[in-house]
Amino acid sequence: MRRRSTLRLSAEDLASGHAIACQTVIEGAAAISLLPQEEVTRHLTTDRTAVDDQVPLVYDFLRDQTLRAFYLELTPPDLADQTDDLSRVQRALRREHDLEHLVTNLVVLQALGDTLRAADWKVTAIVESDTWQQPDGPPRLLDVLPGDRTGRLFGAALDIGTTSNVVYLVDLNSGKLLARAVDYNGQIARGEDVISRIIYASKNDGLTELQGLVLQTFNGLLERAARRARVSPQEIYKVTAAGNTTMTHLFLGLPPQSIRLSPFVPAVNSPPPFLAADIGLQAHPRAGVNCLAGVASYVGSDISAGVVSSGLMEADQLTLFLDIGTNGETVLGTKDWLLTCACSAGPAFEGAGVEHGMRATAGAIEEIWINGETYEPSYRVIGGGKPEGICGSGLISLLAELFITGVIDRAGNPKRRLRTPRVREGHHGLEYVVAWADDTANGSDIVLTKVDIDNLVRTKAAIYAGYTVLCRSAGIDPSDVQQVLIGGAFGQYINVEKAVQIGLLPDLPWDRFQFLGNTSIKGAYMALLSRDARRRVEEAAGMMTYVELSADNSFYNNFTSALFLPHTEIARFPSVEAVFQNGARKSPQAVGEGVSVNP
Amino acid sequence: MRRRSTLRLSAEDLASGHAIACQTVIEGAAAISLLPQEEVTRHLTTDRTAVDDQVPLVYDFLRDQTLRAFYLELTPPDLADQTDDLSRVQRALRREHDLEHLVTNLVVLQALGDTLRAADWKVTAIVESDTWQQPDGPPRLLDVLPGDRTGRLFGAALDIGTTSNVVYLVDLNSGKLLARAVDYNGQIARGEDVISRIIYASKNDGLTELQGLVLQTFNGLLERAARRARVSPQEIYKVTAAGNTTMTHLFLGLPPQSIRLSPFVPAVNSPPPFLAADIGLQAHPRAGVNCLAGVASYVGSDISAGVVSSGLMEADQLTLFLDIGTNGETVLGTKDWLLTCACSAGPAFEGAGVEHGMRATAGAIEEIWINGETYEPSYRVIGGGKPEGICGSGLISLLAELFITGVIDRAGNPKRRLRTPRVREGHHGLEYVVAWADDTANGSDIVLTKVDIDNLVRTKAAIYAGYTVLCRSAGIDPSDVQQVLIGGAFGQYINVEKAVQIGLLPDLPWDRFQFLGNTSIKGAYMALLSRDARRRVEEAAGMMTYVELSADNSFYNNFTSALFLPHTEIARFPSVEAVFQNGARKSPQAVGEGVSVNP
Repeated sequence: MRRRSTLRLSAEDLASGHAIACQTVIEGAAAISLLPQEEVTRHLTTDRTAVDDQVPLVYDFLRDQTLRAFYLELTPPDLADQTDDLSRVQRALRREHDLEHLVTNLVVLQALGDTLRAADWKVTAIVESDTWQQPDGPPRLLDVLPGDRTGRLFGAALDIGTTSNVVYLVDLNSGKLLARAVDYNGQIARGEDVISRIIYASKNDGLTELQGLVLQTFNGLLERAARRARVSPQEIYKVTAAGNTTMTHLFLGLPPQSIRLSPFVPAVNSPPPFLAADIGLQAHPRAGVNCLAGVASYVGSDISAGVVSSGLMEADQLTLFLDIGTNGETVLGTKDWLLTCACSAGPAFEGAGVEHGMRATAGAIEEIWINGETYEPSYRVIGGGKPEGICGSGLISLLAELFITGVIDRAGNPKRRLRTPRVREGHHGLEYVVAWADDTANGSDIVLTKVDIDNLVRTKAAIYAGYTVLCRSAGIDPSDVQQVLIGGAFGQYINVEKAVQIGLLPDLPWDRFQFLGNTSIKGAYMALLSRDARRRVEEAAGMMTYVELSADNSFYNNFTSALFLPHTEIARFPSVEAVFQNGARKSPQAVGEGVSVNP
Repeated sequence: MRRRSTLRLSAEDLASGHAIACQTVIEGAAAISLLPQEEVTRHLTTDRTAVDDQVPLVYDFLRDQTLRAFYLELTPPDLADQTDDLSRVQRALRREHDLEHLVTNLVVLQALGDTLRAADWKVTAIVESDTWQQPDGPPRLLDVLPGDRTGRLFGAALDIGTTSNVVYLVDLNSGKLLARAVDYNGQIARGEDVISRIIYASKNDGLTELQGLVLQTFNGLLERAARRARVSPQEIYKVTAAGNTTMTHLFLGLPPQSIRLSPFVPAVNSPPPFLAADIGLQAHPRAGVNCLAGVASYVGSDISAGVVSSGLMEADQLTLFLDIGTNGETVLGTKDWLLTCACSAGPAFEGAGVEHGMRATAGAIEEIWINGETYEPSYRVIGGGKPEGICGSGLISLLAELFITGVIDRAGNPKRRLRTPRVREGHHGLEYVVAWADDTANGSDIVLTKVDIDNLVRTKAAIYAGYTVLCRSAGIDPSDVQQVLIGGAFGQYINVEKAVQIGLLPDLPWDRFQFLGNTSIKGAYMALLSRDARRRVEEAAGMMTYVELSADNSFYNNFTSALFLPHTEIARFPSVEAVFQNGARKSPQAVGEGVSVNP
């Protein structure tokens, strides 16, 4: 076997014998195993994000904008007042608006004279204060436009997700959200998680390519959102971005390698502000791009933004904040102290690494109920048609039902002697058939294998171990947690009861759980409107003590003991224990309606 | 006549019938007059600038550098200290050097991680303070380099002259001048004075072309100076530039049109600092480029820099500062007040607009003596060979001698009845033959025509009228002036006695005159080394009250009455009057040796 290209493979991949099929020549007898693949469905069901509107912004922030537009009617120069053009603008801003020490850019100056004269000295000055994120930094004149344009002052909040990219287009005068646009991150085809992206970035022009892809995605989103709101992207004068640390590095073209290697140190957690033109973002070229402050290599500004937008920074009660995604970032604390960690949960709940897993798009099974006597399932499919696969909430639901009905044991092993054809021997050992070929969209059985179950159990165990270590570090018991805030687009659709049954979420009264949707974009939106909110994000980042789990032996112990359903010590999940003891199960249908935020 | 291109002609040129020969098709009978042309000799005699070294910097400035290099031995990160790369550098600079709120650039960040690791965490940080010319502005990290490079910190001072461009390469650690390089401004072929450059810039891509040409010149000069000093242009971390307002606009790519049109308002007198990469200057790409503060459209930063480097800002005595060049900028005052004007003297003293005029290069007659009885001249030629033409100091000398010996009358008219073949009727009326064809380099007579004389008289009259108006505006008499500081490369070679005889310089005791050489580059050099000096230049610019001569009727009256030799009222030039009354002339040779700074 001769590999012609190893572009997308890490040293570890190569050592373990991986090769890229279309780039490899078979030169003799070979045993080939194919990695599980998933085709990315290139649309997001927009109705699934509508919940964002229903969830209020928890943190009640003061609107306190750094960007302002001033309409100036300048006295034209004459022989008695030969003040130069820039000084004339500066003087008016000083006299009429108390702006001292205004600085500007060469490009502004190059256009200034013509603009002033063509507009008959009636112009709008776009000024950003607090430029260097310092209250005493000099205000920056970022454009001078003809006529009165004070009514058209727009900004954009960005969420740079590993999987999804989101843009909020905002009217900076009213603070109103004008349009939202969501798309998959164009980098997905170059690797599904941050580690594979980092590896890709380290090869040849990988970094430039990845930066180009995410910018292409955002430029498309900005254009779409702007078109919907009847705004020109050139009228977007301010951009605030949140994202995990790797995504932020790739967005800015910063080499991310050191994030992956011990001691896991990024180039920067809190990037200074840049201009849109510096990175090629298609807003106004001199729009300031503020990447919010993150905490560490695996706890980025999406989390610090989430901590602020979720209200955790104001919490009197002991609060657990979970971002249930690939990185499994977790924060524990109150307004006075915060601990954080990332538990590398893996992408199983996002549908990756599971044979029939898929994202939460049309055709995905999102909730499942299993009859405790017949072991026959019933399920709900997104969009209502025949199922193609199972998304994260469906997987949680399925795992819980399999466990509660006794199809699998506490170690996740399917039981052989059940009276049902749905448990059978498959290619990867025992498996449960969720849907027969006749009932599926692509005409083949949808199953959950033992390998899938192990993956899911490892993922939930990692998340459980993460918050458990944080609780132990703080000297508290998980049952002391007064509220659990769940962020991330994924976090919106989880059925709490089932997530508790598998041991993913702690066993607490259901009213302690709140689903907040995309807390990252909400934090970016707040920081876009309010310097106070931006400072809160910085404070949140500075306040969080990062617990490096790879350096913590107790994480491994907690992880290992969580590799059971719901846990080695079932006493930690009394409500689950009660289900078994009482044999009293409520109607799953009723539970689903009562707790899930699904329709 | 059909003009195929009018690229280099103004509307006025076109109206008065001008055309470009190679771009015009003659379609019938035509009467054509050719404009006088001068071929630019493409080298500057470097020995002629050597006087710069001999003239001390008058203003005794405090060295107070904004740019510093810090050697840092950083503690490498480990699992107990996962501080990000930028914060690690910021922390060290804060702890060890009290630098707070360090800001930086995306490009620095993009290279930071690799540099730190490759250099084993031992690096040099290049930091500029006072970035926004504000004491409390945030310091700027402009590069991080491997190892200890603190010894290699260089800067460049630039003089952007209409005719000549000068670079001083400076060691910012020692303050020492390492190398100097001088060349003609590459824009010369696009127009000899600022007005023709402004016209050129207004057409098609003229502005871009002119900016490209002057940058090409400076990039060549920076490279030459750097090579001589064994420095890489990349090690030039700071640039300070002085120049007249039009040249500064073209250097920065700012449209200069409004400078030329009433009310003569530039885009900016005091440009904010830019980066070398913003304009394509081949220093370190993130070197700050500080264009010093000028006063008005026709009094640029070359003059405010000159006011500081000449010591005028510290003068107790009433001082006149003259920059005798095309623009004829003049400053009058003391340390407490300053008036300034520009009198559009024209380029006659720079050899342009005079039939056999030329620049002060090899082959130019630079001083002339005429025998009062035979009217035969003797002269000194730069470089010692046969003459090719007459440079500015030669023209002043010639005009004075013609006048004192009675070859011409007080109105500048040659006398017909002298017993000498040297006064004759030429193509443009009467003329004086300075050198016969046999004695010249190009085999044709060198003459001074009546037209030339009128040009020279108008030029000296404009300069005289300029400082006279300033004196009147200040309520003083020119004879009250205690010292006359003469700047500009041209100003170094004038024979004071002769300049007084023609009424160019005021009739004051010779010891009141000081020739300071290129005061503009000296001011830029000081501002490069000292933030105090830079602020002094700003103060100087702010302190100067600009008198717009085109709005001042008394300028025209003074100009008209100065159209005689030395002046309508000869009583204003008592020493000249005495020469006539006494008939007592000292040996010109002795005068030349005694006063001129020529060898």
